[in-house]
This record gives sequence, C-alpha cells and structure tokens, in this order.
Amino acid sequence: METVLRSARKTVVIGPDKPTVLIGERINPTGKKRLAAALAEGNLDIVRQEAEAQVEAGADVLDVNVGAAGIDEVDLLPKAVKLVAETVDVPLCVDSANPNALRAALALYRELVPNGKPLVNSVNGEAASMERVLPLVAEFHTAVIGLAMDEQGIPPTAEGRLAVARRIVERAEAMGIPREDVVIDCLALTVGADSRAGLVTLDAIRMVREELGVNMTLGASNVSFGLPERETINWAFLAMAIQRGVNCPIVDVAKVRPAVLATDLLLGRDEYAMRYLKDYKKRLKAAQAK
Amino acid sequence: METVLRSARKTVVIGPDKPTVLIGERINPTGKKRLAAALAEGNLDIVRQEAEAQVEAGADVLDVNVGAAGIDEVDLLPKAVKLVAETVDVPLCVDSANPNALRAALALYRELVPNGKPLVNSVNGEAASMERVLPLVAEFHTAVIGLAMDEQGIPPTAEGRLAVARRIVERAEAMGIPREDVVIDCLALTVGADSRAGLVTLDAIRMVREELGVNMTLGASNVSFGLPERETINWAFLAMAIQRGVNCPIVDVAKVRPAVLATDLLLGRDEYAMRYLKDYKKRLKAAQAK
Repeated sequence: METVLRSARKTVVIGPDKPTVLIGERINPTGKKRLAAALAEGNLDIVRQEAEAQVEAGADVLDVNVGAAGIDEVDLLPKAVKLVAETVDVPLCVDSANPNALRAALALYRELVPNGKPLVNSVNGEAASMERVLPLVAEFHTAVIGLAMDEQGIPPTAEGRLAVARRIVERAEAMGIPREDVVIDCLALTVGADSRAGLVTLDAIRMVREELGVNMTLGASNVSFGLPERETINWAFLAMAIQRGVNCPIVDVAKVRPAVLATDLLLGRDEYAMRYLKDYKKRLKAAQAK
Repeated sequence: METVLRSARKTVVIGPDKPTVLIGERINPTGKKRLAAALAEGNLDIVRQEAEAQVEAGADVLDVNVGAAGIDEVDLLPKAVKLVAETVDVPLCVDSANPNALRAALALYRELVPNGKPLVNSVNGEAASMERVLPLVAEFHTAVIGLAMDEQGIPPTAEGRLAVARRIVERAEAMGIPREDVVIDCLALTVGADSRAGLVTLDAIRMVREELGVNMTLGASNVSFGLPERETINWAFLAMAIQRGVNCPIVDVAKVRPAVLATDLLLGRDEYAMRYLKDYKKRLKAAQAK
C-alpha cells in the first residue's frame, strides 16, 4: 500500500520496504520560544531558515505548524505554507488543530501547486475531529495523518490504539478517501513516566501493520521526554518502530537521519549502501568546510 | 525458556522479556595485535585488564578466547580462564575452536568453581563440530552457543540458518542437553558487501524465536564491517535484533551498553527506567572524575 505525496516537482512515495520518508518537524512553535515570538509578530524568517536547513539535512517532507497562543492560524498558516512552498520543493504536511486554518492553507496551496498533494496533520478518532477534518481531506484529495486517540484520550493498550486506527480508516473509506491516503500515528508517550509506554506503541504499530496494512508515521522523540541522553533512546526507538512498520516518522531530521539510514540499510532497503555512504560523505564534507 | 549461567557467586539468567545480558567480547586476540603478541609470550596482563574494564563497563558475562597463530590453546586457555575467574566474579563464556582446549579449560574451571556453569563458544551445524563439542557440553553441564552454519558455510537465507539451528538443537536434545542450554547465533555478515545481509539475519532471528523458542546471542558488530560510522549501524542493528529475540549479544560493552539499556527500556524491561538512569549517572560520574 503506497501513499503518494507531491509538491510542484517532487513526488514522494511512502510504502513498506521503501526507504523511510523523513518528515521534518522543526517548523512548529511548540516548545520553541523564539519561533513562537517571531510568529506572533507575523515574522516568518525562521520558518524560511528552518525549511532550507531541514531540506539540506535530508528532509523528504516538511511539516508546517504555526499554532501557538495569540496567533491567528487562519491568517498565518496559509502564509507559512506559501513561503515554504516557494522556498523549498518538497511535499508539505499541513499541520493544525484548527479546521478553518487547514481549509485556508489547503485552498491556497491548491492555487499555488495545482498538481500538489499534501499530507494533512491531523485527524483523530473523536467524532468531532473526523466530521471536521475528513471532508477537507476528501475535498482537497490530500492524504491525512490519523492519531490513535479519541474522546477518552490515548488508549493505554495497543489493542485500544488499533481500535481507534481502525475506526479512522473505516470512516475515511466511507467518505471516499482511499485507505492508502490514511497514515496512522500510534503515538509515543514517554518511558520516563511509564516504562511500558514504548512497548505499547511498538505493539500497536505491529498490529496496525498486520491488520490495517496502512503506512505509519510517529512523533518518535516524545518517547524520551524527561530522560537524559534522549538521542540514544530516540535512535533505538526509531529503529524498532521502522522495523515494525513506521515508514514516515516526524523527526528532527539532522539529528536522526544517520540512524534512520542505518536502519534502512539493515532492513535491505539501500542497495550497495549507496544512500548511507552518500549521506556520510555529505556530512563529512560539511564538517570539513566548517 | 531460560538459560542459567553461574560463576562462584553470581547467577545470570538469559530469557525473553528479561533485561538483555551483555557478553563482553574483548578478551579475544582476533584483530588485536597487541593482545595477540602478549598472549604468544604467555603474558596475560591485558586479559586481566580487559576483564576488569569490561565488568566495570557493565558486562554480565565475559567471553575468553586466546586463539591465535603460534598459541597453544590447550595450555593457555585454562590459564586465561583461571585468571579471569580469579579477577572478576561473572560467569564465563569459554571460547575456542579447539575441543581439547575447551576440555582442559572446562575441567580446570570445574575444579575452581564446582557450582559454576559456563557457556561454551561454540558448536556449529557441521557433523564433526557437533560430535566433538556437544559431548563436552553434556559432560560438564554447561550451556553452549550454536552457530547457524555448517559444512556448506553460512546459509544465505534465513530459512537455511533456521534449519541449521534446528539441527543443532535436536542433536543437543538427543544427547541429553536441554534445549534451554542451547543459545543460537544467527550470524551477521556485513551489509557493506551485501545489502540484504542485515535483513537475512533479522529474519532468521524471528524464525528461530518463533519455531525453536531458544535464547539467542549475536556477534553484532560484524554487520558494519567496512562501513563508516559503524556504531550508528551497530546500535540500530542491536535494537532491532533484541526486539526480534536476541537476548545475550556478544559486544564491546562500553560502546553499546547505553543503546542496549535504551532498547530494554523501550521494550518494557526496565521498571521506572532505573537501570537506564543508574547507568547514565555512573558514566556521568566517571566522566567528571576524569
């Protein structure tokens, strides 16, 4: 099952046994004071810089989120999407909890890139979320991230998350959205608070792959929140999650790309280790240039 | 299914869902010129240093191998085993391709530690190997590592490696060696030479776990031979291999322990992240003391 995303000139295909697609997470003011303050003033300079830096670091898709206190997303999200689309040529992941902001951004993006196909971030299993977001996905022919949570929050068991994912996929299909355009996020909670949290997510990923067959994303860095040496945990988690079926994680690309390329290599997705070696040489050259 | 190893005062239990047991690989002259030269002169100082350093770094079991050109293993292996047993108190993995050296070392170890139970490294699927090594395992009531290779070499497919592992387990059982005392190594070849090599090993691990249910070791670092930034590859490989069932890899403990502890934490094997945090604080303190 393949999820196809498109920008003006680039097509990205997400699918099992294909190289892992990296969605860059850094255009998002959550936990970033400087970016939040700039966005509140309508200043998109950092957005442009982050777009360029992430694509340079190897991002295949860019998430664009401008949601923070005091920001009118309906106004700002389309502007940010336009800027990113004009700055770099990768497919976009349009990210907002506000359906009106999503609509405005998707409408503008369709004008700018008539043949484009973005990813919408996100719908979840709440009836209200599905009612508001899935019609946009159907209307604009986008793909969509479905979060495995609902009115009761994030299910504590893998079976519970699978049940929510199943509900989202079924509702999408009932609305004419093909299953391959639903990308499930099984959600990672920190193992710092609950030492079963990683296992629950990994088990949910396996179940969703086996039962629903859909592609999967993951905001993998949450898993290490509150613990030291987070990258060690994040790398191990990504490797295991990719082995079980995650194929388009949302990540800090510069930090995790070497580990993801190593994982792809070990899973037989990198003929002659060409991607791994090319990335290594590129980083080596960049380090020497400094 | 649990494999129990014992030194004079320590018992190590290898089993599914238990914390990963780390077998320290560094007492082995292969590729270590200085150690090989010292051993050829009968000098065991480095052996003592490596024993202490690896246990300090968190090794649960120590592999002891003195095999190199010009070395009489029948004479030297018992001496090295005695020295390590007197230096540190962890179970040993007695490692030689020479059955006479294994016999001499196991006999001496039984005298020194009558209640001890070492691991023998290794038998493989060749008829000659099973005929020479398994009687020792039965006689000395040890556990044994079974390498998934035979007269034809290392099978190129996962199914082939499973078949060899099955043969070793069945032959051991026929000789009265309980299945839980056979620890299979599915063998890792470098992805630098064959980009399917990692996947074949990972698939074999899954099959051996599912069909035979035995515990598994892995000499994981081979997988990155000839490639740059080997640790990135080794960490990802270990995480995926542990997720699939490897539970006592043979490793350079100081290099991989943080990644293995992170993997255990993510797999729900580290209540309250206590092992992960304790190890972090210990390394932090050691770094500050320098």
